[in-house]
Amino acid sequence: MKQLAIVLLSGGIDSATTAAIAAARGFSVHALSFGYGQRHAVEMAAAGRVARALGVARHCVQSIDLRAYGGSALTDDIDVPMDRPVVGAADEIPVTYVPARNTVFLAHALAMAEACGAFDIFIGATAVDYSGYPDCRPEFVAKFEELANVATTAAVEGRGRFRIHAPLIEMGKADIIREGVRLGVDFSLTHSCYAPLANGAACGRCDSCALRRKGFEEAGVTDPTRYA
Amino acid sequence: MKQLAIVLLSGGIDSATTAAIAAARGFSVHALSFGYGQRHAVEMAAAGRVARALGVARHCVQSIDLRAYGGSALTDDIDVPMDRPVVGAADEIPVTYVPARNTVFLAHALAMAEACGAFDIFIGATAVDYSGYPDCRPEFVAKFEELANVATTAAVEGRGRFRIHAPLIEMGKADIIREGVRLGVDFSLTHSCYAPLANGAACGRCDSCALRRKGFEEAGVTDPTRYA
Repeated sequence: MKQLAIVLLSGGIDSATTAAIAAARGFSVHALSFGYGQRHAVEMAAAGRVARALGVARHCVQSIDLRAYGGSALTDDIDVPMDRPVVGAADEIPVTYVPARNTVFLAHALAMAEACGAFDIFIGATAVDYSGYPDCRPEFVAKFEELANVATTAAVEGRGRFRIHAPLIEMGKADIIREGVRLGVDFSLTHSCYAPLANGAACGRCDSCALRRKGFEEAGVTDPTRYA
Repeated sequence: MKQLAIVLLSGGIDSATTAAIAAARGFSVHALSFGYGQRHAVEMAAAGRVARALGVARHCVQSIDLRAYGGSALTDDIDVPMDRPVVGAADEIPVTYVPARNTVFLAHALAMAEACGAFDIFIGATAVDYSGYPDCRPEFVAKFEELANVATTAAVEGRGRFRIHAPLIEMGKADIIREGVRLGVDFSLTHSCYAPLANGAACGRCDSCALRRKGFEEAGVTDPTRYA
């Protein structure tokens, strides 16, 4: 019987590749996605397509309202920045940062893991490229793993030790795309754009589109995205 | 201008007292409550009553579905235990434990705090009495505080340091009730029962009712609860 793993699945390149890595490592993938009031809710549909293509054992979709807390261009009426150059690890944390988002997502993943007897949680966080998000750094992932092992009955009673896997954390977008291709991920099913058009096309101008385009170029892989 | 604090408010004795403590310490209280698929959803109404009585600056109610993950008598169709003696810190973690609940709640509180510029989060966790929940221990609270300070832009950029306050963590129910009375908490507004009747009366037989009754007795305070 395969070990279960919870995989956070947003429907983007990183989480699709992460899910494929979890499957390749022999885990039975239980995917967890969030509708969290994000402007780019079409990514939920992408998460569903990726989950089906991967043949996951279970896909749980949790609705939470991070808009109620505010503070991000991804959930508020703050404009998503457009036409900016792709930069390296940013000096400045972008307005698309959602306060404590990965803490919230991992907390839910931990609840789901403990409830179904899993001890492995995968997250597609990457500290490379433009993100600069504090909750995409190795320190954050390591600290959450420590927390998981004092927070839960499963760990405290010694039934196992939680591991938070962030296999992409040191990888840039091109490397992630190459790894995804190697594992058979169909990136045409994924979605990255922060400001998609009503017809579903990617804007081609937000930070996420810019990073995606550059990643495919650098990887030497044809970009399957439909841009506006 | 008062400093803001996020206070997790369930509508029970502990969180009502915790909110009163936060207010007494000079914080502007921003309360956060959860509808999480609990069987005793009447506690949501109690949270509203307590928030109004306290005159909180804001009361945010977040809906999440912890039933989707399963694993607890409070969210599943597992029977709530009845007619058990009140014991000390339990050897066995009760079936009313909800996997990683306080991790999920504190993660949301952290998101709300960062979004509104607060650095103080209050939780009414207590390690005393029967609970035996791993996420009610001082080790858990300290670890979450460490996490908060690596997880967020506000902390990483040095704008402040998050503090997780658990003022009741070493207090038994009678002491909590005495402290609440001293601070003017109206416990008739609060709700504890895990298995309330359709008419809103407390069952008087679940662990939570037993602990509440014993607490009022020991504190020498009249129990305002309407039991079945």
